[in-house]
Amino acid sequence: MSKSYRVAILGATGAVGAEFLSLLAERHFPIADLKLLASPRSAGKKLLFQGEEIPVEAVTEASFTGIDLVLASAGSEQAKLWAPIAVQQGCVVIDNSSAFRQEPDVPLVVPEVNRYALKEHRGIIANPNCTTILMSVVVYPLHRVIPVERLVIATYQSASGAGARAMAELLEQTKAILAGQTPPTEVFQYPLAFNLFLHNSPVNEEGYCGEEVKMMRETRKIFAEPNLRLTATCVRVPVLRAHSEAVNIEFRAPFPVKTALEVLQQAPGVTVVQDFARNYFPMPIEASGKDNVLVGRIRADLSHPNALELWLCGDQIRKGAALNAIQIAEAMIADQLL
Amino acid sequence: MSKSYRVAILGATGAVGAEFLSLLAERHFPIADLKLLASPRSAGKKLLFQGEEIPVEAVTEASFTGIDLVLASAGSEQAKLWAPIAVQQGCVVIDNSSAFRQEPDVPLVVPEVNRYALKEHRGIIANPNCTTILMSVVVYPLHRVIPVERLVIATYQSASGAGARAMAELLEQTKAILAGQTPPTEVFQYPLAFNLFLHNSPVNEEGYCGEEVKMMRETRKIFAEPNLRLTATCVRVPVLRAHSEAVNIEFRAPFPVKTALEVLQQAPGVTVVQDFARNYFPMPIEASGKDNVLVGRIRADLSHPNALELWLCGDQIRKGAALNAIQIAEAMIADQLL
Repeated sequence: MSKSYRVAILGATGAVGAEFLSLLAERHFPIADLKLLASPRSAGKKLLFQGEEIPVEAVTEASFTGIDLVLASAGSEQAKLWAPIAVQQGCVVIDNSSAFRQEPDVPLVVPEVNRYALKEHRGIIANPNCTTILMSVVVYPLHRVIPVERLVIATYQSASGAGARAMAELLEQTKAILAGQTPPTEVFQYPLAFNLFLHNSPVNEEGYCGEEVKMMRETRKIFAEPNLRLTATCVRVPVLRAHSEAVNIEFRAPFPVKTALEVLQQAPGVTVVQDFARNYFPMPIEASGKDNVLVGRIRADLSHPNALELWLCGDQIRKGAALNAIQIAEAMIADQLL
Repeated sequence: MSKSYRVAILGATGAVGAEFLSLLAERHFPIADLKLLASPRSAGKKLLFQGEEIPVEAVTEASFTGIDLVLASAGSEQAKLWAPIAVQQGCVVIDNSSAFRQEPDVPLVVPEVNRYALKEHRGIIANPNCTTILMSVVVYPLHRVIPVERLVIATYQSASGAGARAMAELLEQTKAILAGQTPPTEVFQYPLAFNLFLHNSPVNEEGYCGEEVKMMRETRKIFAEPNLRLTATCVRVPVLRAHSEAVNIEFRAPFPVKTALEVLQQAPGVTVVQDFARNYFPMPIEASGKDNVLVGRIRADLSHPNALELWLCGDQIRKGAALNAIQIAEAMIADQLL
């Protein structure tokens, strides 16, 4: 008989928390017991899991006793507070925040790319930034064929990356504008409806925002290529839950488009979506709710002999967050690390 | 006494046509007489110009008799049909369509960049593609300091680029989705509300869409740099009337950020908008209705010693179309070419 696990979700009431619940059921994750944890503010709410109402508990030190696996998506502050406590009590914590991603003894894992890194874990495994996960799943299989020299990326990021409240705010803003009223701006500093803006993370002295810095650092760690050259412009767009990215990839040598297409058609977690005659390529509304990252318009970059251009869309809440974390847990089970 | 001109607007009832009317009034363009031309379908409508109702006439061969200047924004087919007839009758035609842009004897002009090219005109002057105009105004002043080697561009293009009907469709789609209904798709093949998609122009055998090809060809012609290397990914986003672009510029030598900032602060038609502490940079809602192209987040590309990254937004209907055409006419008047 296969083992089953006592699982806790930390941040159960958020957008990613809700997706953890859907995915655990959908993927028949071997659950012996499920505990839903959140801030005291959310305690007492009840969430449905496989037809059963489960109460949300306020997280305390005692919450992690007897738990095997913590799926955490409660932000960096909460992760820094609770993950060490959970690990001390014997849990494995897969954390969706950026709190531990750059710690040398914390694996930062996209299972399709660097599953091997899980072996080195000391209790905490970090789930990468959403834009980084989606791009890595597509670019890494190409990198294995001919090494990547440099990436120039522009993102089109949905409201969901800023949480369930941001999605609600986009809808509220849209209604307000259609009614001729001033759109509310609480989650985002500026209106997102019928607008867009550079990513709302703090900008450093080099002029890069936090999201762009994450893409650079995390991609290097996941690819195990500390010198990989990467630049990004991260942009928030009025889309609800899937991110898109225009990716320019310069390789060490020319990469035939036909070969790239063949590689991507066989790459795990990737679906090629391109019908040139119909002008049909990946779109966020079609990536939403899907596990795979959609990629298309794979073409030679006419401005560089060694470069390709491609376009990808992926569900920010699924593969960009909850699904990747659960796939990490599944890989750990299969590799007898959990 | 300064001269005044008999002006005809071809395509007066479209989004760009409406902007021609606003701008001619706003800029006190020296008009002796104004004729509004459109397809027979729109004939009989009346449009306001400086408080006066002017009837829209169906365009015929006789429409151009006695006209000095035709401002045309009626699409390529209409331009090919009427521009030669107008020129034969002695008109100067400034055409917003792509019909004549690549003809060797037709100047393709952004006045801030290649005003000198107007001298060679033989009756028709082509107004460039909107994304190309907006980018050229920002990149050319830098190119004059250190030549550009290569451009990697990702665009975020508003509905207005596809005309007034596309803007209306975006609003209708948004209302339908908020009401839980299926969004109408007549102008665009796919829903744009809460979605985005690669630009809806036909894709060629190299995998580039028409809009991207325009950017490549037109930038080379405007800059008079036939070998300029440029790649672009053009994307339609759910924004009403301003385009945004993430532009990666590789120069022949390192370009200090401070110098770039100084150049752009003095560049005609450009407004630098950047407050790093407040995360305040150009946004389409703030570029809408403005004449200048807004540029910000000017930073060194950490992935290339000779490259800069920047972000720009510009009103697609103004500088991206109607304003640039009127600025061409103004330059021709000043240079005694009209």
